[in-house]
Amino acid sequence: MTDFTATRAMFHLPDGIIYLDGNSLGPLPIGAREKARQVLDDEWGEMLITGWNRAGWMALPQQLGARIARLIGAEADNVMVGDTLSTRLYQALAAALAMTDRKIVLTDHGNFPSDLYMAQGLLDTLGQGHQLRVVAPEDVAANLTDDVAALMLTQIDYRTGRMHDMVALSAAAQACGTVTVWDLAHSAGAVQVDLAGANADFAVGCTYKYLNAGPGAPAFIYVAPRHADTAHTLLNGWLGHAEPFAFEPTYRPGPGITRMRVGTPAIIQMRMLEAAMDVWDLVDMADVRAQSVALCDRFIAGVEATCPALALASPRDAAQRGSQVSFRFANGYAAMQALIARGLIGDFRAPDIMRFGFTPLYIGPDDVDAAVAIIADVMATRAWDAPQFHTRHAVT
Amino acid sequence: MTDFTATRAMFHLPDGIIYLDGNSLGPLPIGAREKARQVLDDEWGEMLITGWNRAGWMALPQQLGARIARLIGAEADNVMVGDTLSTRLYQALAAALAMTDRKIVLTDHGNFPSDLYMAQGLLDTLGQGHQLRVVAPEDVAANLTDDVAALMLTQIDYRTGRMHDMVALSAAAQACGTVTVWDLAHSAGAVQVDLAGANADFAVGCTYKYLNAGPGAPAFIYVAPRHADTAHTLLNGWLGHAEPFAFEPTYRPGPGITRMRVGTPAIIQMRMLEAAMDVWDLVDMADVRAQSVALCDRFIAGVEATCPALALASPRDAAQRGSQVSFRFANGYAAMQALIARGLIGDFRAPDIMRFGFTPLYIGPDDVDAAVAIIADVMATRAWDAPQFHTRHAVT
Repeated sequence: MTDFTATRAMFHLPDGIIYLDGNSLGPLPIGAREKARQVLDDEWGEMLITGWNRAGWMALPQQLGARIARLIGAEADNVMVGDTLSTRLYQALAAALAMTDRKIVLTDHGNFPSDLYMAQGLLDTLGQGHQLRVVAPEDVAANLTDDVAALMLTQIDYRTGRMHDMVALSAAAQACGTVTVWDLAHSAGAVQVDLAGANADFAVGCTYKYLNAGPGAPAFIYVAPRHADTAHTLLNGWLGHAEPFAFEPTYRPGPGITRMRVGTPAIIQMRMLEAAMDVWDLVDMADVRAQSVALCDRFIAGVEATCPALALASPRDAAQRGSQVSFRFANGYAAMQALIARGLIGDFRAPDIMRFGFTPLYIGPDDVDAAVAIIADVMATRAWDAPQFHTRHAVT
Repeated sequence: MTDFTATRAMFHLPDGIIYLDGNSLGPLPIGAREKARQVLDDEWGEMLITGWNRAGWMALPQQLGARIARLIGAEADNVMVGDTLSTRLYQALAAALAMTDRKIVLTDHGNFPSDLYMAQGLLDTLGQGHQLRVVAPEDVAANLTDDVAALMLTQIDYRTGRMHDMVALSAAAQACGTVTVWDLAHSAGAVQVDLAGANADFAVGCTYKYLNAGPGAPAFIYVAPRHADTAHTLLNGWLGHAEPFAFEPTYRPGPGITRMRVGTPAIIQMRMLEAAMDVWDLVDMADVRAQSVALCDRFIAGVEATCPALALASPRDAAQRGSQVSFRFANGYAAMQALIARGLIGDFRAPDIMRFGFTPLYIGPDDVDAAVAIIADVMATRAWDAPQFHTRHAVT
């Protein structure tokens, strides 16, 4: 059994704060401080350029990928860390489309907008008449026809927490000859994912949310072993070359997942990810999921019992829900500001979504109860209806 | 006058090391330690998600771009930091090609291979018959014909330090209706660059070399003001959207350089860059260049006077040279290992280039003299001809 008391002690959590926004940015693993000291003083400071070999910097993107692999049901050698999620999505979709002559990319309007934007940029540039077909989440399966090149989905909706059935949709896609590209932004570290079991083709994700690797932490990409040695690389960075230090004039992709490296990796951010993975290595995702469901159910029950004005926006059925709970409220922006002022941090997504993430590594039932009490009080007293809570910020 | 004694005191330089590889990875600015403490403890640790506003994370990529702008003769509002140099080159070249119906991208074989690789990936994907024309560096001007869409050059050759005349080539390109894309990897912080004066169209660069921002530090992109509001964005990341937090389904590029943002920026690496820029803010690039030329000339004279086996590979004329000096030697790999074993760190580039970077911020004439003495001794005693120096590593 995972010891969540032990994992909680591995994070710095500010005094007086209940943090239900780990689905947006996870908290500081205490071990990150020592990693920062190590990478600055022992490595960059003392080894200088020789750190690429002596400190093992060059191997970090794949080593960290192997540690993430366990959490998402991937083969250890098929995950590469680096760059941003937007860039990784672009790379994965380009590779998927290179496998087929079909022109349609199927997605849903619950997808994170950056995925849609990156796909629009890519499809326009391909100039071959590719088309992005955006349907409602519940209509994805019905739109999986045998002219669909790629199914590009974010498994868990960033607003509502609604979760697609990855196994069923991957199987349906495969039956149509459609290549799958899964975005695991709100899945990795949140729910049990089994990429290998689902026979997924490509997947991407980020590490600053549930994985707790810090602001701007690197993304990752997964390529199924059956594609890894032939996957098309559009972003032909030198570190994806078969022999980067041969400095050949023409690109030759490296073996397997190594071809998905692009430019020089962000080593300092990767050491932070390493600190985060030192916690994850102690954790069983089945335990995380069970506890997450318990926390979410407890939160829904508590809020619904005390706050009739808040309407559940997330699926009630835990099997269809990720590790967040959202409520709709017309004054949700102001209400979230009022909660934050009382030390309960969630976030708001336009037009009316109040979003709360549940992260068993450092959030327990007592936190849920305390959060419910604060929400109940803010709603009962209409504390949100004060002028200072109505001033908009770019990010909440 | 820039006080180079003061700047030197702002870096951690390991005992017993003469570091002539700042052209590959600059040393640790001492201020980076406090920045790391700040971003981990005060910001990520305490502010959590609210750091995006309260700690100013969201503004960092453009603020840091404005500080770099001064060093490269760019308008302050036209430089954006983030992602890797390979990705930025791809972005800039895509924007350049969107401005013209011409199909030829002219470059030279002194370009860093990653630029050639990224261009190959992009041109293949465009599928419109684009062609990469790779000529010898000295033949670039003669190949600037009025069918060339884009001139894509790394200003300073990573092997020899040979420097293109940016003003002359930009003017020649403009006379042909050719869009320019300059890679400043070995220029930013190394030589005086005047992007605005040269009327350059696009430029990209990295910050881990002469700018000293650490392993995997972010890249930057420059877009001339006349293009900034219309430049094509192929990498349509959400943070380049006009209103990222409106979460609209369709991409609308933001105003000016903001459209060149892609995904979530690497905040911890950016705080390291900030520490590096705290040094650069005290520096006049004219002083850096004058001192760099003096150091390079002194080094060439010293080595040529003592090491007849080493053949100068860099231009002798400082006006045609960046801030590095390279020598050819058939056993250059082993010789560089022997130098490193004696505390003189330079690097090696196949097949026979020994490369030494000169960085006035922390390297002075005494270091040059000490380096020459070590090289002279290693060459005179054939110290490099020991078995342990012939074992190859991936990176030196």
